[in-house]
Amino acid sequence: MKLPVIDRAALDRHLPILGWARSYDRNVFTSDMVAAVIVTIMLIPQSLAYALLAGLPAEMGLYASILPLVAYAIFGTSRALAVGPVAVVSLMTAAAVGNLGLSSPAEYAAAAITLAFISGVILTVMGVLRLGFLANFLSHPVIAGFITASGILIATSQLKHVLGIEAHGHSLVDLVGSLIAHLPDTNLITLAIGAATVGFLFWVRKGLKPLLLKAGLKPRLADILAKAGPVAAVASTTLAVWAFDLAEKGVKIVGEVPTGLPPLTLPSFSSEVWSSLFVSALLISVIGFVESVSVAQTLAAKKRQRIVPDQELVGLGTANIAASLSGGYPVTGGFARSVVNYDAGAETPAAGAYTAVGILIAALVLTPLLFFLPKATLAATIIVAVLSLVDFSILQKAWSYSKVDFAAVASTILLTLGFGVEVGVSAGVILSIALFLYKTSRPHVAEVGVVPGTQHFRNVLRHRVETHPAVVTLRVDESLYFANARFLEDMVLDRVINDAPLRHVVLMCSAVNEIDMSALESLEAINTRLDEMGIKLHLSEVKGPVMDRLKRSHFLEDLTGKVFLSQYDAVRELVGTQTQAAE
Amino acid sequence: MKLPVIDRAALDRHLPILGWARSYDRNVFTSDMVAAVIVTIMLIPQSLAYALLAGLPAEMGLYASILPLVAYAIFGTSRALAVGPVAVVSLMTAAAVGNLGLSSPAEYAAAAITLAFISGVILTVMGVLRLGFLANFLSHPVIAGFITASGILIATSQLKHVLGIEAHGHSLVDLVGSLIAHLPDTNLITLAIGAATVGFLFWVRKGLKPLLLKAGLKPRLADILAKAGPVAAVASTTLAVWAFDLAEKGVKIVGEVPTGLPPLTLPSFSSEVWSSLFVSALLISVIGFVESVSVAQTLAAKKRQRIVPDQELVGLGTANIAASLSGGYPVTGGFARSVVNYDAGAETPAAGAYTAVGILIAALVLTPLLFFLPKATLAATIIVAVLSLVDFSILQKAWSYSKVDFAAVASTILLTLGFGVEVGVSAGVILSIALFLYKTSRPHVAEVGVVPGTQHFRNVLRHRVETHPAVVTLRVDESLYFANARFLEDMVLDRVINDAPLRHVVLMCSAVNEIDMSALESLEAINTRLDEMGIKLHLSEVKGPVMDRLKRSHFLEDLTGKVFLSQYDAVRELVGTQTQAAE
Repeated sequence: MKLPVIDRAALDRHLPILGWARSYDRNVFTSDMVAAVIVTIMLIPQSLAYALLAGLPAEMGLYASILPLVAYAIFGTSRALAVGPVAVVSLMTAAAVGNLGLSSPAEYAAAAITLAFISGVILTVMGVLRLGFLANFLSHPVIAGFITASGILIATSQLKHVLGIEAHGHSLVDLVGSLIAHLPDTNLITLAIGAATVGFLFWVRKGLKPLLLKAGLKPRLADILAKAGPVAAVASTTLAVWAFDLAEKGVKIVGEVPTGLPPLTLPSFSSEVWSSLFVSALLISVIGFVESVSVAQTLAAKKRQRIVPDQELVGLGTANIAASLSGGYPVTGGFARSVVNYDAGAETPAAGAYTAVGILIAALVLTPLLFFLPKATLAATIIVAVLSLVDFSILQKAWSYSKVDFAAVASTILLTLGFGVEVGVSAGVILSIALFLYKTSRPHVAEVGVVPGTQHFRNVLRHRVETHPAVVTLRVDESLYFANARFLEDMVLDRVINDAPLRHVVLMCSAVNEIDMSALESLEAINTRLDEMGIKLHLSEVKGPVMDRLKRSHFLEDLTGKVFLSQYDAVRELVGTQTQAAE
Repeated sequence: MKLPVIDRAALDRHLPILGWARSYDRNVFTSDMVAAVIVTIMLIPQSLAYALLAGLPAEMGLYASILPLVAYAIFGTSRALAVGPVAVVSLMTAAAVGNLGLSSPAEYAAAAITLAFISGVILTVMGVLRLGFLANFLSHPVIAGFITASGILIATSQLKHVLGIEAHGHSLVDLVGSLIAHLPDTNLITLAIGAATVGFLFWVRKGLKPLLLKAGLKPRLADILAKAGPVAAVASTTLAVWAFDLAEKGVKIVGEVPTGLPPLTLPSFSSEVWSSLFVSALLISVIGFVESVSVAQTLAAKKRQRIVPDQELVGLGTANIAASLSGGYPVTGGFARSVVNYDAGAETPAAGAYTAVGILIAALVLTPLLFFLPKATLAATIIVAVLSLVDFSILQKAWSYSKVDFAAVASTILLTLGFGVEVGVSAGVILSIALFLYKTSRPHVAEVGVVPGTQHFRNVLRHRVETHPAVVTLRVDESLYFANARFLEDMVLDRVINDAPLRHVVLMCSAVNEIDMSALESLEAINTRLDEMGIKLHLSEVKGPVMDRLKRSHFLEDLTGKVFLSQYDAVRELVGTQTQAAE
């Protein structure tokens, strides 16, 4: 009976639900239920607001919060991640679909559905092919800069709803210009609702919980009530608009939201649509995955659990495919909601499925109540939520640590603000890679000597070390590959050309993790040129994998000197020979 | 009188002609003259043939061989490089201008002139900004693969002239398909001339020189006569066409070639033309520079001279600008001609200027004689010349040395043959960089122990070394940066998670040349997680520049363990503590 066991392990790996469902009991159920209720309360206004941010009808936010959560509960590995619409991905959806220049809202919605599908396919395929490591090419500073700039863009884009005016644009300059141009159209009642809601929500964040605790409430209850702030704002402003007929006075409202189950939708399969959305879908997938996986990892580590990044791709991929089949738009794991979910006690992904049931009930029952909900209220909840993403301290940290990292984060922020999210994040990735390549193409090379009384070798410029005039040891602090092969050649020859007593050059390879074919040709050239000057070339501390490869070339036969296991051996032997020669 | 001295050094650097012109004497003049005569004989048929390959009128080849050579003589640093039209750049010109879909030959020529100008500006600007290192990102295997594939494409593209038929296409498949489709139109007289010329030129290469030596000629004279093979072929086939009226029988001839000085031409400055030619011009610039600089370096090294790559960019850049102002098209330093120039005794760039005079005389006097020159003869000289570029041994060398290099060279060859030169070389560069990044994103990590009786630490899997159960030392064989930061985190935690007696983890950083901000955050995470397990994290052999940077962060304060100068110190102290604790 060996085969079924293996099958089960493979099944568990691909269907993580089988792992935790086996030990599911009443206690876990209770914990998951409590977390689900709290997250549902938080998610209802958020899902409506983010759909608005994406330029979509409010109900699509609800639909994106039902089936995708169920799909993630089956295929995802994080026990606390709360999947659904999030701010940054909603903004990226708006940018991607906005680029297409569609006129009718129906076409716009269809494009968002297709975007979710393409993104879901990309994520799932990346997961199956174990390409999760690709996300590592988004460096931390680039992500931090991107999130901060997106937060600013999102908050600015929502000001139009708070002012009750029109404004468009994907960059900060366009947005602000458009806002200023339309400023005279400001609807004062809308502004009053929006500003009051922003003020109220900030107060709820900072002031309400301490107040409730002082009033003698239990911390848990105080927490839930503080999280319900946006719901209270939604309810009271909706009531106000209804009671005072404010919609007649120009306050824009959500209006008719269809009641019922999510519709069955299908993405477009036109190759034209796919080719115009593919790059956007790729960016959304990668950004969504990186955001999601980092919060999932942080929360998993707190309980000594681990998540499986490649399976996370499958979880998020199926969630997006589910979104596209049920009237939703691109989703991912949200930072704030996941933290709330975790703090509220969620123990398994089932909490997500229960949240889906909560949102489903909302879609079936609550939508008529949303008719008079002012858009300004939703905009206010977005503004308050995203301003917590804005954090310029990364600029100061990067500046003090490394100018290269600073360049990456500063350009990402500037380009995102100046040219929109897609240009910003692409430029951030390309710049990070370019700067890394630039650094490796001009490696640090140190001339080293032995630390007296030890067998340890350090930089002659930084430490008090001993050297010998006939022997120079150069420690190359980089792998040798095509981008720096010629640099090494120039560097070694420049060092030796005017040093008459020199007889031996030792390349200390303790930091050389790779010698590619281009670098091998450069080493051969160095060997030949040094030979012509009567200088022998030696290597020391060559790593195993590098040595294996050198043995497969002619280099070791042509080498005028030797390969020493340790630098100490090299100097003992070479200096010894010199001393004998002198005697 | 200090200032003028500094000025002179700066002038010498930017105008290398001032360096060698001062010591120019009669002997040097004679050497340069002899070399110039031989190169001129070689260059006349080549310049006509390569213009044909680029899809341009024959005289543009001559014009590209006059002023550009003078410009290089003033600004270039190589004493042997022979600048002018070359095969690969001519093919790239044909591909670039062909992409524009122009109908009239005049527009086509104007585009080639503009291409030379843009390329000249790119090269000059790169030189002034000292961006020559960018060329290093073309790895040796990619260049080798590209040159081999280009040779095949060029030879195939010339078959149409040998057969006297039409054929078009930028990829091997298109070319061969087009050739086969038009095969029935083959002109047998043309084929006879072409095939005979190919046979004759191969015989001249292999058989003529030994024969002449046997006949008692001096080696130098035998060499010159062998180099004159193409001139003999041009003369005899032109005579044959004229004498037997073969042009009437369908043999395509060069026809009217204008006599006189090169015309003054101006590039287009339309932004539309520039944007459609810019990428092509960039590729031509980089490929031309890399080819040119590598032959220049090889020849300079033979005489213990050095070339200055950034000044070479200026030399080639001004040569291309000169080409665009005098009816030429993109030029660079040619491999075969430069070797001939060097072997013939050229001592200064003045040899190039004398060659320019030779070609100028040809343009003033010889052009009427070229009327009956069959295109098949020119095609034959190209075929014989480029087949020497084809060298598949790089595939076998790369396969045995490194599969990654093999992947780069094989894809470059296949993509160049399959999709043309521009796709081929771009893909080669991108693939080389991607493969390098992939390798560095999954670094080699070795667990090390001390080699008994020494202070030297090596991989426990490869060497017989001593370790201690409470202390594990991991040597990370790569710089730590965003692409591998998460990998390191996973790797360290996987190693320690089930190792109960473990109390100390030492990261031996002898091969870590950089820790960027992303990696710093990962190290902080590792430190925290290990702390939670009661394990201390230590670093050893941290390099100076890396340590400087760490000191500017909070990491060293938070680190649970210590930073040891040498790995030996680390183990002595940590194992010592453990032994005391056991006692």
